[in-house]
This record gives sequence, C-alpha cells and structure tokens, in this order.
Amino acid sequence: MNYEFHLKARIRLSGEIEDEVLRELEDPVKERINKGVPEGRGVSKIEMRADGTGIELEILSDRYLRAHDALLRIRKILSQELGKRRVGLRGIEIRDYTITMDESLNVRLKVPFIKEMRSANGKTTLKLDVGETEIEKRIPDRILNLIEEKKRAKEYGSKSEHWELVFESKKKDFKYNGDPTEEMIKRHWIKHGSCRGQWIYGPQITKLFRTFEKIVIKELLEPLGYHEMIFPKLVSWDVWKRSGHAKAIYPEIYYVCTPKTRDPEFWEDVMDYYKVTHEIPVELIKEKIEGPIGGMTYAQCPPFWVFLQGRTLPDDVMPIKIFDRSGTSHRYESGGIHGIERVDEFHRIEIVWIGTPEQVIEEAEKLREGYRRIFEEYLDLQWREARVTPWFMAQEGLTETHENKSVGTIDFEGYLPYKQNWLEFQNVSVNGDKYPKGFSVKLQSKKDLWSGCSGIGLERWAAVFLAQKGFNLDDWPEKLVKEIRELPEVFRFL
Amino acid sequence: MNYEFHLKARIRLSGEIEDEVLRELEDPVKERINKGVPEGRGVSKIEMRADGTGIELEILSDRYLRAHDALLRIRKILSQELGKRRVGLRGIEIRDYTITMDESLNVRLKVPFIKEMRSANGKTTLKLDVGETEIEKRIPDRILNLIEEKKRAKEYGSKSEHWELVFESKKKDFKYNGDPTEEMIKRHWIKHGSCRGQWIYGPQITKLFRTFEKIVIKELLEPLGYHEMIFPKLVSWDVWKRSGHAKAIYPEIYYVCTPKTRDPEFWEDVMDYYKVTHEIPVELIKEKIEGPIGGMTYAQCPPFWVFLQGRTLPDDVMPIKIFDRSGTSHRYESGGIHGIERVDEFHRIEIVWIGTPEQVIEEAEKLREGYRRIFEEYLDLQWREARVTPWFMAQEGLTETHENKSVGTIDFEGYLPYKQNWLEFQNVSVNGDKYPKGFSVKLQSKKDLWSGCSGIGLERWAAVFLAQKGFNLDDWPEKLVKEIRELPEVFRFL
Repeated sequence: MNYEFHLKARIRLSGEIEDEVLRELEDPVKERINKGVPEGRGVSKIEMRADGTGIELEILSDRYLRAHDALLRIRKILSQELGKRRVGLRGIEIRDYTITMDESLNVRLKVPFIKEMRSANGKTTLKLDVGETEIEKRIPDRILNLIEEKKRAKEYGSKSEHWELVFESKKKDFKYNGDPTEEMIKRHWIKHGSCRGQWIYGPQITKLFRTFEKIVIKELLEPLGYHEMIFPKLVSWDVWKRSGHAKAIYPEIYYVCTPKTRDPEFWEDVMDYYKVTHEIPVELIKEKIEGPIGGMTYAQCPPFWVFLQGRTLPDDVMPIKIFDRSGTSHRYESGGIHGIERVDEFHRIEIVWIGTPEQVIEEAEKLREGYRRIFEEYLDLQWREARVTPWFMAQEGLTETHENKSVGTIDFEGYLPYKQNWLEFQNVSVNGDKYPKGFSVKLQSKKDLWSGCSGIGLERWAAVFLAQKGFNLDDWPEKLVKEIRELPEVFRFL
Repeated sequence: MNYEFHLKARIRLSGEIEDEVLRELEDPVKERINKGVPEGRGVSKIEMRADGTGIELEILSDRYLRAHDALLRIRKILSQELGKRRVGLRGIEIRDYTITMDESLNVRLKVPFIKEMRSANGKTTLKLDVGETEIEKRIPDRILNLIEEKKRAKEYGSKSEHWELVFESKKKDFKYNGDPTEEMIKRHWIKHGSCRGQWIYGPQITKLFRTFEKIVIKELLEPLGYHEMIFPKLVSWDVWKRSGHAKAIYPEIYYVCTPKTRDPEFWEDVMDYYKVTHEIPVELIKEKIEGPIGGMTYAQCPPFWVFLQGRTLPDDVMPIKIFDRSGTSHRYESGGIHGIERVDEFHRIEIVWIGTPEQVIEEAEKLREGYRRIFEEYLDLQWREARVTPWFMAQEGLTETHENKSVGTIDFEGYLPYKQNWLEFQNVSVNGDKYPKGFSVKLQSKKDLWSGCSGIGLERWAAVFLAQKGFNLDDWPEKLVKEIRELPEVFRFL
C-alpha cells in the first residue's frame, strides 16, 4: 500500500521573526530534512511562512519519511537555529493532517484521534485529530499499523488458526462411552459452584487431580530439575501490557476492582442497605469501587516475570526451570452448561523454563518425551500432537505462525469417545524472546535469552482420561491405580 | 427501649362498600387482631373508614404487635370477610408510618425507606417511607434491628474484640532478631508482585511453605482422616449472603466484574485504543463490564458449602473431615508496605469438619493438640493461644462472644522478636450451626448439625518461624531440616 502524507501546522515561538530570518532558516531545513532517506523519496515539499510569533508550515511526504516524523525533525532543526537568535519554540499546533492510501479499505478503527476516514475509487483518505503530544507518542504510526493489521485480518479472516499434525499415539481400547461430567454429577464427585462455569470438586476427583500432579512431579519435574515457585494470581494491567495480553483478551477477563477506601463509614450505606433489604446494592457498590486494576489469572506465567523484571542474570544459572500450581485461572467462556472440559475457573500446573535458544528448544523436547511416557504408561491415552499458532500470538488475536520456525506451540489433544472429537488438554510452547524482551530481562553475556512454558490443565487431563477409561478402577492402568491407591468415599446424600 | 407504632394506610378494593358493611367487618378485625398477644398489649386503637372503593385505616400499637404486622393481619381478615361479599383487595398504600422510641439515639441509618429520623428530649421519632412490598419483606423490622445494633455498637464501641489467654508455650531461644521480609528481599527469596500487598515467592520460601504443608498433612490431616477437596475461588454474592459476610466485608473485598458480552466487536474500541495509545482505557472498560458479581476468596470455606447446600446427610457419614489448598485468598488491607505477615494476597490450607456438636468440639481439640505437637517438635516456636470473638462474628462486624460457650475461635499467636509483639498465625474455630443453617444442610435424624474450620496461613507460619529462627539452617529444628532437606538455589542476579 502506498501512502501520501499531507500535514499543516503552526509552530508557536517566544518572539516575532521576520520573513527574512525565515528565509535563512529554510536552507538548513531543506538540507537536513531528508537525511538518510533514499534519493528522491521522503519529503517532497516544505512551505514555511512567518506569521507574527509563529511559523505556518506545510509538509508533503511519502512513507520513507512520514510528515509527522519530518515535523519532529524540523522542530529540532528550528530549535537549534532559532536558539542562536534567542528565540524559543513554544509548541506546535497541528491544523490539518491528511494521509491518503492508494487502496479502498473496508476497515473501521474505533479510536479517538481520527476525524474522518473515507474510502472510495481505490483511495482511502484519513484525517487525523492529533497534537504534538500524540505525534511524540507515535500515535499516527500505531494508527497506520492497526489499519494494516485489520486489513490483513480481513484478507485472511476466514483462515483459521494454524494446525498441523506432528504426532499420533497408537489407537487405544476405550472402556467407556459416556460423558464423564454427567457421571461425576450423578456420583456426587462434583457439584456446580455458585458462579458460572465453576465446579466444586469432591474428594474422589481431587484425589485424581493430585495423583496427576504427583506423577508429573515424580516422573517429569524432579528428574528434569524443576523447582516450585508461587506466582501471583491477581494480574495488573502492567503485566498484561508487557505480556501482550492487553491487546486482545478483554472479552474473556474476570475484571478486578478495589474499594475506593477501607473507611467503614464510606461503606455504611451499603452495609445498612444490605442489612435492611437482604439484597446487595450492586449499583451503589459500583460507585464505590475503583476501576478495574486488572483481572484474575488468565495465562498463568505472565505475573511470574515481574520476579525477573529489569534484571540481568549470569549465563551459568541457565537454564532456569520452575513451575507453579498455587491457584486458579479464570476465563469468561461462552455461556451455557459445559462439562469440566470447558470451565471458567480451572486448575493448572504451569511449567516455565528460560535459557539460550538451544537450551529452551532442547528442554521443550524433553518435556514432550516425558509427557508421552506419562500418557502411555500411567494413563494409556489415545492422543495426538499438533503444531499450532503460538499461544501467545493466539491470545493477542493473531492466527499466523512465528517467523522463527523454532518458536511455536505444540498442542496435545486427547480423544473423547462420547463426543467423537478431540480435546486440547495441554501444550508445550517455545516462546522465543517474547517474555525476556517484554519484561526487560537480560543475560550477562548479552546473548539471546528465550523462554518456554507448558500448561497442564488438571480438568482437561481428567476429562480425557475419564472419557476414555470410565469409572471402573479395574479398567484403569495398573501404574495409575498403584499411585492413587483408592478413591475416598466421604459424603453420601439422601 | 419502648416503641410506639402509628400507621395510617388506605386499602384499595375492587368495588365500593357501604359504611354499614364496614361496621360489620370491624367486629372480626377487633376480635382477631391481638390474637396471641399478652392481655392489654398489642394494638390499642384501630380506626376504619369506608372511602369509595377503599378503606382508610389507622393503627396504634406497641412492640407486642407492631402496627405493620397488625396491618398484614387485617389484610388477611378483610380478604376473607370481603371475599364472602365478592369484593377483592387491590393493594395497600401506606400514608404515614411513624415509630416513636422512648430514648434519644445518636445513631444514623443510611438507607432509603427512612423519610425522617429525629432525636430530642429523650425521644426518637422515625418516619418510614415504605409500601406494602417493604412490609411483606419485613423492612421495618430490619430497620429497628439495625437501630438496636448501632445503639449497642455505640455503647460498647470502645470495647475491643474479645481476647482471653488460654495457653502459653514454653519460652524459646530466639536465634534471630531481624525482619524476615527484609532479609528475604535481600536474598532474592521474594519480590514484590505488580499489585498491592502481593509477593512472588521464589524456590526457597516456596519449599518452606510446601514443607509446612507436608508436615500438616502427614502429622495431622492423614492421621485424623481428612480428605482433600477443591473449593471455588471466585465467590458470588449468594455465598456471602448465606455465610453472613455480606453484612460487613465491603471495605476489604477484591471485587470481580464480568464482561457484558464476549462479542469481540463490542470490545473493538478498547483494543483499538490500547493498540494506538499503549494505555488501558479504564473508564471505557468500566462501561463495558457488569457490576460486581462478588469477589475473590476472602474466607476460604464459605464457597465449599454450596456442595452441601439444600441437602440431607445420613448421620453415619459424620463427622465429615475435609481440607482445601487450591488457591489464593485476597483482602484489601491497609496501604503502605508490609512484610509477608500482612498481605493482600495470601495462601492458606483451610480445614473443615462437620458433625454433631460433640463431634465438632472433640475434633477441634484434636486439631489443637496436633498443632501444638507440630509447633513444638518441628518448628520449636514460642506461641500462645487465646479465645477470641468467633471469626465469623468478627467478619460480620461483631465484637462479642457467642451465647454458646462451646462456639468460638482460638487464635494461635506467635512471637516476633524483631517487633517485640505477637502475630496471629492461625486459628481453630467451632462455628456452631452457623453454616449448616445458612446453607440449609440437615442431618437425617434432624439432630443438630455443627461445623468447625481452621485456617493455616502459610505466610504467617513462615513469618513467625523465620522471625524466631532466622536463616541459618543449623539453627533450625532437626526434624524440620530432615523434611526440607535443602533449599534450592535457582536464581542469581548481577
């Protein structure tokens, strides 16, 4: 796509300048403006006109030097030249900024800063409503990036997420053909919590979850030298800005708000209202809370990275291998009743490793091998593995694969006989330099620093396992039964 | 306090009645109105006047039959009597409702439904703004209860929470005199998370937490026959209504709000704004979320009770013994920087037991003995135990003890040498029938059903232990070191 940039502005000065002085300024401006820009490109026209205590300015340029960047160059040059004459710059007012693209575009941007956007006859005209601050913050550039992004999304919109089969387990004997969630409800193993997509897990299924955990720790994490940490479970905007989640996860966040104050008197009307009506005055509460500071855990590893944020690590501590299983993750999923394979509140062991690209890639392979061994020996599952759009890209709303072939996500999918369909039940990802870059973490040697992560969804493991093996322990693999010993019977109901 | 109730209302009818008919109705009303009320008490005056298709009514009464309750009685009687004459009741309009108390009161209620409240000359006059619905919902009664509650709070306001020493351990040798949080920061064991009162726990301190857990499970929970469950970590208003927390915890809740919809188009302006400015449009998001549906976990056991809600259990499964350690709790604590002994996000093993009163009381004793053994043998702590206001009453804003002496909370307090002060680091509570009642859980035999709970704060245990024993493993009790083996060294920073 080709661009034409047309900008009109007025530069305010601390004193008057004569037309003559301005003529003297034109030379250094015209000489230096296209520095570093290919011959014949960049700014094609500059007009400057003295106007009392200001300069009226008109710039025409192409994408090799966008007019707003040219404006910043001019500001710098004028500031130097006028400084010699004891005149200062007092700010810039953008009178008009029109960007013309040589294509009709069927995209819509919902942001302030856009006065008008029109497409017709193979052209798109964009009129921006920006000032000096917005130009310094590179708002026009980000608007153009977003237009390009939306244009691409329209073009490839129908293309679904990348999916490429890379491994398939042997076919297995299924011992069961029912929906495990239904059966667990019947057996009082689980009961719906009071929130959407939330289950309360009774002793039997919790024992199964904890046995999965025990196997993962014993067979995978301990032999490979992983150590447990505790990652935060309330996530601030700042973390999601750095992880990239702030670009796209809004429709699925469980947002968190804090009280405006802890002063009990401030809350007295809410308490009184409740005590008198036995109803929660939600609208009144809304006025008394700050609003949202972030949300409940969505992806599990981002808030860990604050531990390393801004730090430099010696090369010899690499690779770093850690995991967290200290709490819940929450996503606002689509409504309706789903089983434990699709929940709003779920439990996951999150594994993170950090090192040189070679170390990170090698570690991902070791984990994949370990998982395969567990799925064969302990769970006897039928599963397959697929290379998909990297999770961190998917969660930013992207559908491509990474430019670097080593960076990517392997999804493990288990077969659900009762649905005759596959369910993604865990993944292994090499995230490249995404997180070290986002959180400014460096190696002492300045070599590339990469990371990987792998999420083990306990609900998903159970959903796949129970769907294939059912509820008769005689049908379960011996090695698993040996670990689980027996399922506790605690409750009975009338 | 004595009350006088004076109510004026108009009952709307489906047709006109003659004065004569009304006279016929007066007899059954006057005859039946004070039924069950002590002689000479209750309603002292009733006046009824036919008025086209309505009856004007005036009632004067005392606290033995509040005028609004009398009104409901009259409605019932009239409905029966007029039914015989094919006239129906069409609703009641309260014209004026004044309640007079024989005391000056220095309390203030911040609720709708109160038109005016005035105190002077040893009298308080309360004019209510209520309709038929509010009377059916017992709003006037709850207003009077709240007045009594606030009056009591004023009288006993300066009285602090109940506190009564019941046990003291032996004096111990302290090996350390520093603030463990400071030392842990220096050692990179912990780092502040990106939210207020939130820490990220590195491998060493996490190992200590998990060792505490292991000891509690091995020495206490397994021998006593406890089984693990997974309690929800997002708590709805409905749970807090039933648990009583809805009365008072508003100043400390981390509120949770859900998106109004998952439709990505609805969120496009938020995403666009972020992509263009790299700033989160918090005000815009506020308009796009539903107002709080509840909050993050405050007390850990209430959301478990939904598992039993509305159910009847056979007597022979009692006592039920369970625990949860599946996630974080969050409280909006007072600002400023605190150590790990006072945090907004914390980790706790929550133990719950349910049974007959005898079973519940006996179990609490067993737990206390178990804790004492652990604190002596594994942690070698100096601690004390105090009987305090039951936690579930404290969290409802009350300061008294329970009327039943067996119901109550024992706080365990550990000594912090660096602060020369005590820190509550766990508790054991007998909660009486509070939770079974609140969540409608019954025994088959209809006998009393009680419950207890005990929260083990991992941060608090660590805060007390490290404050007394320091960071030199040679100073730590042998039995603990044997469990912990070694503290993992994973990170180093430049």
